[in-house]
Amino acid sequence: MTTDSSHPFDKALQLHAKAPGQYTGVAPAPYWNMVGPFGGVTAATLLRAVLQHPELLGDPLSLTVNYGGGLVAGEFQIQAVPVRTNRSTQHWTLSILQPGPDGAPVVTTTGTAVTAVRRDTWSAADTPAPEVPRPGDLAAIPPAFGVEWLSRYEMRPVTGTIPPVWDGSGDHSLSQLWMRDAPLRAIDFCSLAAMADIFFPRVWLRRARQVPAGTVSITVYFHASQADLAATGDGYLLGQARGQEFRNGFFDHSAQLWNEAGTLLATSHQIVYYKE
Amino acid sequence: MTTDSSHPFDKALQLHAKAPGQYTGVAPAPYWNMVGPFGGVTAATLLRAVLQHPELLGDPLSLTVNYGGGLVAGEFQIQAVPVRTNRSTQHWTLSILQPGPDGAPVVTTTGTAVTAVRRDTWSAADTPAPEVPRPGDLAAIPPAFGVEWLSRYEMRPVTGTIPPVWDGSGDHSLSQLWMRDAPLRAIDFCSLAAMADIFFPRVWLRRARQVPAGTVSITVYFHASQADLAATGDGYLLGQARGQEFRNGFFDHSAQLWNEAGTLLATSHQIVYYKE
Repeated sequence: MTTDSSHPFDKALQLHAKAPGQYTGVAPAPYWNMVGPFGGVTAATLLRAVLQHPELLGDPLSLTVNYGGGLVAGEFQIQAVPVRTNRSTQHWTLSILQPGPDGAPVVTTTGTAVTAVRRDTWSAADTPAPEVPRPGDLAAIPPAFGVEWLSRYEMRPVTGTIPPVWDGSGDHSLSQLWMRDAPLRAIDFCSLAAMADIFFPRVWLRRARQVPAGTVSITVYFHASQADLAATGDGYLLGQARGQEFRNGFFDHSAQLWNEAGTLLATSHQIVYYKE
Repeated sequence: MTTDSSHPFDKALQLHAKAPGQYTGVAPAPYWNMVGPFGGVTAATLLRAVLQHPELLGDPLSLTVNYGGGLVAGEFQIQAVPVRTNRSTQHWTLSILQPGPDGAPVVTTTGTAVTAVRRDTWSAADTPAPEVPRPGDLAAIPPAFGVEWLSRYEMRPVTGTIPPVWDGSGDHSLSQLWMRDAPLRAIDFCSLAAMADIFFPRVWLRRARQVPAGTVSITVYFHASQADLAATGDGYLLGQARGQEFRNGFFDHSAQLWNEAGTLLATSHQIVYYKE
């Protein structure tokens, strides 16, 4: 259950600390999407910056990442600042910078995070995992497109796959799929954050039309403890995402991620740009 | 349909610009909650700071506010910085500061926002408003507690009211209610942001037990245009909120806000601390 540091995900998230909260990293080719890295890995990298900060308190509770501009190949800088530390919660501001057209650093990505020390309390799971076939009973699909990051995940769709034909016939926006890292890797908070962004744009499914689209802002709420993650190991997660509203160039979706035992590890929401 | 500047909501959001993006305001007594102002008004105030910035591009698309510490009575400072402006989107970082125990300013609240110029595109409403009685057929309830802000809203619950007895009998976390400002006020993006936080803690409903609870982070996605808001006027909004997971001191909920015509104006999510 130990994390192999030679795994592409760990390599992608490698940061070099210049000072507390000041890091440099390199945009990861193995997770490349169409015009920059997979946004889930960018979110995970910001979370990694928080988690390796020497003043960290607790575990991830919430993470919001706003994609102002795509990362380009090469080095980036991260700033992760614990702006307020309470007894059991800590509030972080996050940003990624890369050199702009004139060489001066420009902000590509902003974010905030909250980490928290959690205590045993009354608990209730109010969003049961849907009844779906087990991952072993479903086929793993080949990457839907020729982008690199899709080869870094094993995906076994239950429903709501990428439309086989773009014929404008779509009538819903619900996807469910089993997923895990490829090659296998024991899950941690960072890979959970990345997987929360794995869903292809709901507008493609809803319209059965492949229009340009990209996440503008994502929020992840972490319900899992370290023990829940350890119990999940390198098993599958069941992800579910459904669009709520598609309006004038932007849609939002709501998503849930359970482990195979049915524990809800994270919930997530995002708002996404689309064209036409 | 003009906004009366003598309305308590407008007074609460009054900011004085010291420089672009640097404002001072006063924590509003008419919206006081138990130990500080109603969090929805705090979120609305941050949004107001964005909207009165001279470099503003477009209308609100998303807003995330993290409550690091409660505001106390008296003056506060807001910083609203447009850290990145694209052709049709603009990314903002937000913070509120108040003097700490030693007089030096400390961060009470962090946030991010995205504003956007929206264009007419294919659109689809995928979260229809639930079939519920009209507001005129439901009774307006008196404020459930002796806190001031509850008197600033008219609320006509459909289902999921505050439990009449705290007997531990709860079995769900769904609330639906019609709401509007009291006194009446034509809705705008700021009051919409505030109303997105109107729901009492889901844990009280789910447990029928009133434990200490407070929002840690809220995100609002705005689907409404200026025209949708104008069409809504001072009519009712139908709000719906449901908890997703209650675990070890924190729960999250997902919420929707429609106008009387059934247009989804905003969706929202929050993660909330609770004790025991």
